[in-house]
Order: sequence, then C-alpha cells, then structure tokens
Amino acid sequence: MMVCTALVFFMHTGFAFLEIGLTRQKNTINILFKNIFIITIGLLMYYIGGFNLMYPGEFNGFLGFSGFGLGTDAAGLTAEYANGGYTYWTDFLFQGMFAATAATIVSGAVAERVKLGPFMIFTILYVGLVYPIVGSWQWGGGFLSTLGGDEAGFYDFAGSTLVHSVGGWAALVAVWLLGPRIGKFSEEGKINAIPGHNIPLATGGVLILWLGWFGFNGGSVLSADPAATSLVLVTTSLAAAAGGLSAFVVSTLAYKNYDLTMFLNGILGGLVGITAGADQMSPNEAVLIGLIAGAIIVGAVALVDRLRLDDPVGAIAVHLICGVWGTLAVGIFGAKAGIDQFLYQLAGVAAAGIFCIASALLILIILKKTVGIRVSREEEMEGLDLHEHGMDAYADFRMNQH
Amino acid sequence: MMVCTALVFFMHTGFAFLEIGLTRQKNTINILFKNIFIITIGLLMYYIGGFNLMYPGEFNGFLGFSGFGLGTDAAGLTAEYANGGYTYWTDFLFQGMFAATAATIVSGAVAERVKLGPFMIFTILYVGLVYPIVGSWQWGGGFLSTLGGDEAGFYDFAGSTLVHSVGGWAALVAVWLLGPRIGKFSEEGKINAIPGHNIPLATGGVLILWLGWFGFNGGSVLSADPAATSLVLVTTSLAAAAGGLSAFVVSTLAYKNYDLTMFLNGILGGLVGITAGADQMSPNEAVLIGLIAGAIIVGAVALVDRLRLDDPVGAIAVHLICGVWGTLAVGIFGAKAGIDQFLYQLAGVAAAGIFCIASALLILIILKKTVGIRVSREEEMEGLDLHEHGMDAYADFRMNQH
Amino acid sequence: MMVCTALVFFMHTGFAFLEIGLTRQKNTINILFKNIFIITIGLLMYYIGGFNLMYPGEFNGFLGFSGFGLGTDAAGLTAEYANGGYTYWTDFLFQGMFAATAATIVSGAVAERVKLGPFMIFTILYVGLVYPIVGSWQWGGGFLSTLGGDEAGFYDFAGSTLVHSVGGWAALVAVWLLGPRIGKFSEEGKINAIPGHNIPLATGGVLILWLGWFGFNGGSVLSADPAATSLVLVTTSLAAAAGGLSAFVVSTLAYKNYDLTMFLNGILGGLVGITAGADQMSPNEAVLIGLIAGAIIVGAVALVDRLRLDDPVGAIAVHLICGVWGTLAVGIFGAKAGIDQFLYQLAGVAAAGIFCIASALLILIILKKTVGIRVSREEEMEGLDLHEHGMDAYADFRMNQH
Repeated sequence: MMVCTALVFFMHTGFAFLEIGLTRQKNTINILFKNIFIITIGLLMYYIGGFNLMYPGEFNGFLGFSGFGLGTDAAGLTAEYANGGYTYWTDFLFQGMFAATAATIVSGAVAERVKLGPFMIFTILYVGLVYPIVGSWQWGGGFLSTLGGDEAGFYDFAGSTLVHSVGGWAALVAVWLLGPRIGKFSEEGKINAIPGHNIPLATGGVLILWLGWFGFNGGSVLSADPAATSLVLVTTSLAAAAGGLSAFVVSTLAYKNYDLTMFLNGILGGLVGITAGADQMSPNEAVLIGLIAGAIIVGAVALVDRLRLDDPVGAIAVHLICGVWGTLAVGIFGAKAGIDQFLYQLAGVAAAGIFCIASALLILIILKKTVGIRVSREEEMEGLDLHEHGMDAYADFRMNQH
Repeated sequence: MMVCTALVFFMHTGFAFLEIGLTRQKNTINILFKNIFIITIGLLMYYIGGFNLMYPGEFNGFLGFSGFGLGTDAAGLTAEYANGGYTYWTDFLFQGMFAATAATIVSGAVAERVKLGPFMIFTILYVGLVYPIVGSWQWGGGFLSTLGGDEAGFYDFAGSTLVHSVGGWAALVAVWLLGPRIGKFSEEGKINAIPGHNIPLATGGVLILWLGWFGFNGGSVLSADPAATSLVLVTTSLAAAAGGLSAFVVSTLAYKNYDLTMFLNGILGGLVGITAGADQMSPNEAVLIGLIAGAIIVGAVALVDRLRLDDPVGAIAVHLICGVWGTLAVGIFGAKAGIDQFLYQLAGVAAAGIFCIASALLILIILKKTVGIRVSREEEMEGLDLHEHGMDAYADFRMNQH
Repeated sequence: MMVCTALVFFMHTGFAFLEIGLTRQKNTINILFKNIFIITIGLLMYYIGGFNLMYPGEFNGFLGFSGFGLGTDAAGLTAEYANGGYTYWTDFLFQGMFAATAATIVSGAVAERVKLGPFMIFTILYVGLVYPIVGSWQWGGGFLSTLGGDEAGFYDFAGSTLVHSVGGWAALVAVWLLGPRIGKFSEEGKINAIPGHNIPLATGGVLILWLGWFGFNGGSVLSADPAATSLVLVTTSLAAAAGGLSAFVVSTLAYKNYDLTMFLNGILGGLVGITAGADQMSPNEAVLIGLIAGAIIVGAVALVDRLRLDDPVGAIAVHLICGVWGTLAVGIFGAKAGIDQFLYQLAGVAAAGIFCIASALLILIILKKTVGIRVSREEEMEGLDLHEHGMDAYADFRMNQH
C-alpha cells in the first residue's frame, strides 16, 4: 500500500508532463504552477477536512463529517484496519494522493486561458468539498453503495466515476464557461489544431501515468492479497494496451495518419475505462473494455471539437466519457454483469454528474461574475508565463511566434 | 514481484527517452510512436500466445505451445507458484514487460530511417514468436537448461542472452540490411558523428533504466528471499557504477574528452554484463565484470563504426556485445565458474545467435523485398515526423537545419 | 527497504533534472556529467571503504574503520539484522545511495563555473571520507548519539544534519571560494537573476525528489513496521506541501509575483526540515515545521544573494539552512522536545558544521592553490559543454546568446 501511495503520488508528475507537453511553450510555467499548487493544497485540504468528509463513519448516506484533522476516530478505525494489511495513516495518504487528481483533470481542460487566482479558489472548494462528498456516497458507505439493499449497489472499484468523472464533469462545465482559446475555432467554423510544444514530455507523462495506475488500481484492492492484486494489475495493463492500439487503428483508418496523441489518449482511455471494474473482469473482458475505450476516444475527441468546446489535452474524452463507459461496463461485463447492476451504475453516473455539474456551475459562475475566470486577450496572446510569473520556461531557446 | 513488474514497465520510459535523446529532433515523434507501439503490442502478443510459447510446460525442449490466452494451465501452475511468493498473474505480467524489450533494442538501432509499417510487422513476429521460443529453451525448461544433464546447463539469470542478445542480434541484422543514415559515412570513409538532440532526456533515460534494472534483476530472483534479492541489487548496482566509470576513464584516455554518452553507455554495458550472473557473483566480481564491460563498450562502439554499421544509440555494443560478455562471464567468475560451464554458456550464445540471426534475416529480407524497410531519401532528409505523422515534436521551438 | 533503496536511487535523477533545469543550457552536459560521476564514484567509494568507516562497530566514537570492502564483519552484523526486516546487503545499498547525495548538493551550488577534474577529486574525498566520518558520530553509534548518556543524545532521523547540512556546509565554503558567476552581481551591487533554461525538467526533478523522500524517510525507519513507516510518510508529505504553500504565499506577498522556483524550493525546504524528526512529529507539528521551513526559504534565498554568494539552485537555503532548522526543530516540537534535547541538537549542528567547514576548506584551498577550481573566463562565457565535452546538450535547437 505504501508503495502504491508513492506511485499514485508520481502520477502528478505524469499529469504535469502530459499537460505542458500538449500545450504551448508560453504557458508552461503557469501550468506547472497550477499543478504544483493542486498537489500541495489538495493534500492539505484532505488533511484538514476532506478525509473525514469522505469517510464520516456512520452517517445519513448523503453528507457527514467526523471532524477536522486526523486521528479523531482512529480508535474506532483501527479495528477495521487490523485485517486489511495497511494502516490508518497509509489509508489517509493513499486517498489524499487521489483527491487532488480531480482538480488536475480540470486543470488540463482549462489550460492556456484560465486566471490563476480564481482557479486556485475553485481547486480549494472542489477538492476540499465536492470530491469528498461524492466519494462518501460510495467509498464512505453512503447511499450509492447500498442502492440495491445491503448486499448490492453501485460499484466503482478505483474511481472511474468517483475520481475521473468527478473531474471530467467540472472540466466540461469549465470549458463551456471559459470559451475556446483564441484561434482554436475560426468564424467559418473551421477547427484549428493548436499543437503541443513538447511531445516527448507528454509521452513520458502518459507512461508515468500508466505506472501510477499500477498503484492506483493495485492499491485499491486495499489489501495485500497477492492473487487479487496481481489480477488487477493484469487487467489494468491489458486494457491500457488495448485502448492504445484501438485508438491508433481507428484514428489511422479515419485520418490516414499515425497520430501519436490519439495513441496516448487511447492508453489513458483504456486505463480510465478499466478502473471501475479492474477486479471484476477477466483478462479477455479487460481487453474488450480497452478496445472499446480506445474507439470511444477517437469519436469523443472529434465530438468535443464539433461542439466547439476547446479541451487542449482531451480531458473530457479521457476522463469523463471513458469514465462513464468504464462505470457502465461493470454492468455489462464481468462478475457483476446484469440489468440490475447496470441500473445501479447508471444511477451512480447520474448522481455524480448532477451534483458535480451543479457544484461546478455554482462555483465557477460566482467566480466569473465577481473576479472573472479568463485572462485578458493580451495576456493570452503573449502567454501567461510572462504576465503572471514574469518567467520563461525555456529561457535560452529561441521560439516561434505562435 | 509486483513492484518489480512496475519498475520493469518503467524501463520502457527509459528506453524511449534514451533513444530520442540520442537521435535528431526531426524523427522524435516517429521514435516515440514505435516505442509506444512496441509496449502495447508486445504485451498483447505475449498475452495472446507468447507466454504459453515460452512456458509450454512439458515439451520437446525446442518448441512447445500450451494454448492461446491465459490461465489454460493455471491449475497445474498454481502448485508451482504456491511457494514462490508470487502468483501466476504476476509472473505473466513480469515476463510480458520483458518481452517487448527485445524489439525496443532493435528500435534504437534502426532509428531515423526505418519504415514504420514494416517495423511494426517485424515487431509482432519477433516479439510474438522469436523471443518466446528462445526463452523457452532455457526459462521454459528447454534443451539449453539441461545441456549438462539434469543438474547443469546453460545459465542466464535475467537475460544477458535471452533478452539483450536476442534484441542485439536482430539489431545487427537490421542495421546491416538497412544501411547507414545519409551523411553518417562519407565516401572517403570518414565517420561523421550525428549528435543527439536532447541529452538531458537521454541521461534521464539511462537513470530510469538503472532503476528499472532493480526490478529486472531483483524480480528475477522469483521469490521474496531478502538475502538473495538484496545481494542481486548490490551486484547489479556495483556493476553499473563500475561500467560507467570504466568507460569514462578508457574513453577519456583514448579521446582526451569527457564523453558523457560513453559514460552512459558504460553504465548500460555494466548492467547488461551483470544480468546473466547477478545472483552468482560476489560484489568484487560484479565490479570486475562491470569494469570489463565498460572497456568493451568503448572498443565496441569504435568497432561498429569501423565496420560502417550505423547504430545511432549504441544498441549493438550495449546489448549484443555486453550481453555476450555477461553470458560468458558466468563461466569465468562466480559460483558456477568452470570450463564446462563456459562451454554451456558458449553453446547458449551460439544457439540464440544462430536462431535470432536466421529469424531476423528471414523476416527482414521478406519485408525488404516486398514493402521495403527504408524510407525515401526525401523523407529521411526532411524527417519522419513530418512525413509519417504530420506533427512536430517541439512545435514552438526554432530548429537548426541538420 | 529494497523499494526504498530504489526510490532513493531515483532521487539522483531528480537532483540532476533540478540542477540542469535551474541553470543555463550551455553548461548542461557538464552538470549531467558531474552528477553521473557522483552517483557512480559515490557508490564505489562507499563500497571500498565508506560503509565500514560509517559503521565501524565498536569504536572510540570519533573515528573507526572496520576494513575495506563488504562483508568483513557480516557475521557479527547478521544478528542485528535478523529482527530488522532487512539484510546487510540492503543496508549497504540504501546507505550507499545516500552517500552520494552530499556531493550532489555541492554540485548544484558550484554549477556553471567549477572545473570538472578538481571537483571530481573533491567528490572522492568528501563522499569517501568526510560524509562517513560525520555519519559514524551518530548512526555508527559515535559520540553524538550518546551526548546525554546511554539513553539520550543528538537525534537525526534521516539526515537533516548528517546528509543535508553535510552537503550544505561544503556548498557554502565552495561558493565562497569560487566566487559568483560572471554577470550575477554588477559592480554597483545589483543582483541579476540568471534564469534557468528548462523549468519543466526542474519541476519534474522536484516531484521526483519528493517521491524519493518517501524512500529516504520511509526507509530510515529501518524496519517494516507499517504504523511507524506510514506515519513517517504522512509527516513527510504534509511538511512538503506546507513548505511549498508557505514559500508561495510569503514570496507572493513579498514580490507580488507567482514565483514557481520559490514554490519548488519551499517544497524541498519542507522535506529537508522534516527529515530530522519525521518519526517524532504529529501531523500538525509536521505542517508547522513545513510552514516555517517555507518562510525560511524565502528569507534565506534573499540573504544568500545579499551576501553576494552565488548559489544557482538555492542549495544553501534548502539543504544547509533548512537542514539546521529541521535539526533544531526536534528539540522544539514532537516527542523529544525539551531544552536538553535542543542543546544536543545544537551540539550536533555545531560539530558537523565545524568538521565539514574545516574539511571542505582544506580540500578546496589545496585544490585552488594547485590545479585551480574555476574555469577560465572564456570557457565560462562560451559554456563548459563546448570546452570540456565538445558536445551540445540540444544540438538541433537554436539558442539565444546569454
């Protein structure tokens, strides 16, 4: 579990590299700053209150809170941990490393035009309140976990819905409220690709994320049972590989071009897709879920563009759409498949969606009406690094105008 | 074992960074694409058939196959795993992460001029068939493992021959069939260095590979015996350090220049060299094997150039020549040293070499005669990224003509 | 423990990325070369004699040596390891990965103007002799560990003093003897920022260091006790997050600028600050130590500049000043707090400081008077890569004059 925690922490490096790699050089410092802020504040917010909001002990199933800080209910919790092969502290840290992920997903979607200060406020509220409340509905023993009575309910192994779509819904809302980057869509409706500036880092980022998923899904077994954990690692890796290959083949057929970015997003789509049911699937089913996720990615990226939503890193396609797919897949494939389970899954997707959309709208509209959420046209053109940070990410290199 | 599997997976990031770092910017996307393809298809091929080709259970010692997919013989295998401290699934994934390595080694040697499609076909065949068949001869209990009767035979702890030279022989064949990059050798016989474009990534790649070797060699103990595993990590690290320092000193004496690339390749040479006998050597012997490997690297790189073979990353020197050295070293140093063992080692090197050369020749000559294996002169000059991917790895940076 | 060893090894990648990221492109190869040399020679020196100098068994408390190489006292040591959950070999490797860190810290401070050859000699002496002698005073059971009798004494859990300040004192001495880089301080007393050339790598480096600290502090528990180890990971991570946020807030208030470098150095300051007492602090105390460390960083960086000391990466602020802070904090907060303990801590800081300053002065003044320690003005202007290595870190990119 402690190793898994370290790997999940390392995912933040992957997210940062992926996000800067797929965006422009002039906004690099800004993106790194956002990401570092998310990691540090996310962990502190989870320490201050998030953990006890997510795991409130006995509660009404919708909202509960067992106090600030750590260890308040430690005595009661210790018994639970005694058989689990991990400790209260490990549990906190592992979950705390997850928490920030939701905001990191949003960060990628709003990159290159969001105002830093308001985004930091959004992060504090979303990671500190929204994420743990949704999490409590299932992992904290809330109403989603008992939809079908004591024995059955919504199932989300490691967070296709509770982590990825929680970030994805907010990304969708934020992208819609912010509007596209200047130049992304021309007035005649043409879609212009804005190429990323450092594809090696983006690729490294995806490989680091895959590595981190070993910890993310592996650690979610929440025990050291070697058979269960190792099967989860196999389903996770096979879905990733299948997702990548599927996105590569579909996009090559569609666009007659070996598109590396699509390949990479296909891998991530496969990983997000398997996350809800990584412990419920056979290897063959994992491959199938990955293959479908990869095809979904190609279609979803095109759809998001068609809707004139500007998502520089493909966060909506990867985390929201494949998150939904993975959640529903638990009702279609694997040990839990069945019409009842499918409906539970649908209910979970809907409950999280409604609450996240409403929360994100509330927070972001208030911010938009008061301090504003988008940088000035001049700042966007010249780059956020110069304006907000007075720094250049690559001081010694000559750059193209862009 | 699961942690080791994660570390071995991470090696692919190291290989990718090393390969792009030592080549030119204009071919970066292409190289990343190749590497990502190798990882994903390698895992899937190993899942579909490779694992059961490599570990066929009882077989004739040369070729056996226990069926497609996983778990067909799980019942029989479980007994074996019960005492080993790891599971069937872990074993598959750990081995599957290895499998792709053989093609990655070739990838580095053929970089900057190989056609992507044919290389993908080569990868499927070589990783799906050649690698597991050679592996079955030893790790699957085949004829190499019993050369000297039931109690003695060829020994290759973690794959100096079975992984590294399997990749290395194909690299040699491919480089010879492809010919050098335009400009590498002038008509008067002059050798021109073609500098890599991102040495920080190359250096990071080597450090990641060293890290991954902890998993590669550590995990090959195939048990959680702490004394054995930890000694393997010590011999591995000492050989790496000695290899690097030796290559640095020898190359500084030879060329009056602090050559970072040689230092890095010396580290890799030390790692490849210790791989066959990491559990058989004392720390002092590990240092000695590393020192010799480092010196070999300096000579081998010069020799490959002299033969007018163009290997942009030094894969032949590192993986083939140091792979052979490490394999033979098991007969010279350590617990198994002796003339009989030396001959077994020689037989293993020869058997793998003959089969790999023949297979690689067969596959690549057919590809060359049909679809061709080399890109056009125009594409090579302008870069593979533009032609095959329509993308630039560093869109915002200005580049030198090259 | 073996996983922790791997993570600590990976820290060297973090140090290398951080150091090159914060310096200029023209000296990148040189810095990478230094770092790779430090890793390899550090491990070998520790193998040859360092380990037995640091853990001499029974000795006079100031200086002892139990022989060259490994395993000389293995029989005696085995008993000790039997209950510890790790082996003699693991212990050596884990400690050996630490050893090189002291020189790496110096490397960052002297970057961009130190002569490579003399720096290599300094590294051999400092890592081979000074570091293990100081370490023996405490971790080897020497006089610092028994300052207050058998039951009490100096306390330094994972090396705020024994690792970080040992490097930090030498960095201070070296920076003072070397003088600033050309252009850092104008004659009228103006301080010129010399921007780093690759901030994404620097940021990735800090995240890798944080990851490595999981191994550094986690492994220093020297047992597999899950409760103790996991609490250490929690205090370590909270201090890191608090340090970063504190440095960000303080520097934003002071300079009206979102300064990413300060944020990153604040994280490192928090990590160094918690290192001496990571197992003695509650989570709240860890947050407090981190918050103070972050504020210290902002002040210390300004102070070092004011003293016209040129430390390109902030090594003195991070490793020396926060190392001292973390060491003293053990006497102020946590389970050991008290006036006696505070005095023991002060004594430890002073003893290490005096010995390290004296040793560094001795080594560096001799080198300065004989072979010289600084490159020529011409070499510094044109870059060390060209002069000492004949290589360019980014061959295909166009560069600004700088």
